[in-house]
Amino acid sequence: MEVDKVVHLPRLSRVAVCGGTHGNELSGVYLVKELLKAKNVMKEDNDDEERPASVLMVLSNPWAMQQCRRYVNTDLNRCFTHAALSGPVSKKDPYEMIRSKELNALLGPKGSPEAVDLVCDLHNTTSNMGLCLIAYSDCDWICLHIFRYLQRQMPDIPMRYIHLDVSSKESYSLDSVGKHGFAMEIGPQPHGVVRSNIYTTMKHSVQHVLDWVRFYNSGTVFEGGFVDVYTTVKNMDYPRDSETGNITAAIHPQLQDRDFCPLHPEDPLFQTFSGETLRYKGKEPLYPFFINECAYYEKGIALSLARKRLVALPRIRVQAEQEQQANEQGFASEEE
Amino acid sequence: MEVDKVVHLPRLSRVAVCGGTHGNELSGVYLVKELLKAKNVMKEDNDDEERPASVLMVLSNPWAMQQCRRYVNTDLNRCFTHAALSGPVSKKDPYEMIRSKELNALLGPKGSPEAVDLVCDLHNTTSNMGLCLIAYSDCDWICLHIFRYLQRQMPDIPMRYIHLDVSSKESYSLDSVGKHGFAMEIGPQPHGVVRSNIYTTMKHSVQHVLDWVRFYNSGTVFEGGFVDVYTTVKNMDYPRDSETGNITAAIHPQLQDRDFCPLHPEDPLFQTFSGETLRYKGKEPLYPFFINECAYYEKGIALSLARKRLVALPRIRVQAEQEQQANEQGFASEEE
Repeated sequence: MEVDKVVHLPRLSRVAVCGGTHGNELSGVYLVKELLKAKNVMKEDNDDEERPASVLMVLSNPWAMQQCRRYVNTDLNRCFTHAALSGPVSKKDPYEMIRSKELNALLGPKGSPEAVDLVCDLHNTTSNMGLCLIAYSDCDWICLHIFRYLQRQMPDIPMRYIHLDVSSKESYSLDSVGKHGFAMEIGPQPHGVVRSNIYTTMKHSVQHVLDWVRFYNSGTVFEGGFVDVYTTVKNMDYPRDSETGNITAAIHPQLQDRDFCPLHPEDPLFQTFSGETLRYKGKEPLYPFFINECAYYEKGIALSLARKRLVALPRIRVQAEQEQQANEQGFASEEE
Repeated sequence: MEVDKVVHLPRLSRVAVCGGTHGNELSGVYLVKELLKAKNVMKEDNDDEERPASVLMVLSNPWAMQQCRRYVNTDLNRCFTHAALSGPVSKKDPYEMIRSKELNALLGPKGSPEAVDLVCDLHNTTSNMGLCLIAYSDCDWICLHIFRYLQRQMPDIPMRYIHLDVSSKESYSLDSVGKHGFAMEIGPQPHGVVRSNIYTTMKHSVQHVLDWVRFYNSGTVFEGGFVDVYTTVKNMDYPRDSETGNITAAIHPQLQDRDFCPLHPEDPLFQTFSGETLRYKGKEPLYPFFINECAYYEKGIALSLARKRLVALPRIRVQAEQEQQANEQGFASEEE
């Protein structure tokens, strides 16, 4: 890569910040409610304030939020595949299937030029993961530059970039509806609980994301550099009773809360309910995360494992207006 | 109190250990399942083993457990008042109202001579409470001696005895069905999650409770002494929006996880979602607990407050068989 070259990228005109995609992940729920309130107040006070990007605040799953549950019928954050979104609409569909189509109409359509430029979807985890941006690409310079900016602005917060190794065709989460997008995952926080420190971290980081977008749209050049990217390799389930399907062990106390500390072959992995230690039988050290996430018991995931690699980012800046128009015309003509 | 005197108390012939009274408090769920499994194995291996007390293992709310929720229709652990238990049975009743009567038939009837001698009901909390025994009496020598024994056996575990200042007529929880009873509450653990360290603490403490009962029934004299008892004074709700009823603040970061550290007038109590600090306006220092317990958001409880006092325990031992028979006859004749 020529690090001196500046990559010019389209302007981010429309940004969406979403909370309550999982109705019991309360930092995002209360933060989006608070931002909506603040936005209303701001509108009254500063009617003529310059708005470099339109920011849409979305409460994604109001029915689940009302019941303080992850979801009502099915996990909303798995309903945004192209296949699911393009299926016929029926009143008998699970609530979240209907809601995902509404959100796709509001923020998408996914994969189209009309989609919002950036989706930041707010989540919490019971795992000790600090702040993670989770995205489908390891070469989305917008997402990676935002991550690098957050790292520099909040040096005391443990922060990682997780790359889900899933094709864009199979991408399933709300953030995949935007041209760029990521889940912002912060923990540890029990579901159904809001902890001030986690809420405040989320509040500050969303503010920094919006700051970054403003700087970027205003023509700031962001220097190239390097970012550690954790790419998912596989998930591991709990040991289970073959007859009942019930779990027979918990995460080993020596692994609990050690998200992103390398797990080596023969390291303790689980402790059975009768007290036995089960060890990691993998052949290479990998980085565990989502260790003992509450919502993943039903998905058969006790932890995820990743490989870490260093990704080089180019210098970037926004395209000039002229350049952008030319590109848009080019894009439009390709669509004909 | 004459500390040299030995108080003679009835034998504890029947003990119940209950888990899953709240279906998403997983340490108790998995521990009772494990004990049931071990008991079956033990039965096969040691058919003629001496059994000083019969121990009944109970999974209290199987339907809620299956759904990994606190309850299905209503909180089971509020369904054991005399009034609720003596009402007519209807198929239209909430599931937990029906189940509470089943459990009362199995372990009670509450307040009768047929009730089990001791109920140990296993719970988890998202609050940083360590291990607590929660009971309705501050002079139940059995419960207090068990607590003191646990403290000595597990000196590394932060441990408190909470006295709910509620009349026995109004007592509402499953443990109130036994002649003696307590909830064993251990945290912090998110609901819907099992953490090895919390599970193991619960496993060891249940073992110590059963050991204590065996020693007691065998005639061991337990020396008198002193125990700190936290008696509930009041509960405090979150600040709420008067229109929507939504909470407008979280527990202040300086109070979060400081269960049982004295809260003084003007100490920080809440942090609003806009960042303001709200302070404790009480007139005396009190001891907070159940700080930010997940299940209490819907009950309007952000934390509970207690006063601490030292309670003197007498020396106790079990009544001799003869003495017990005389007592039972006396008791029976009182019942006529």
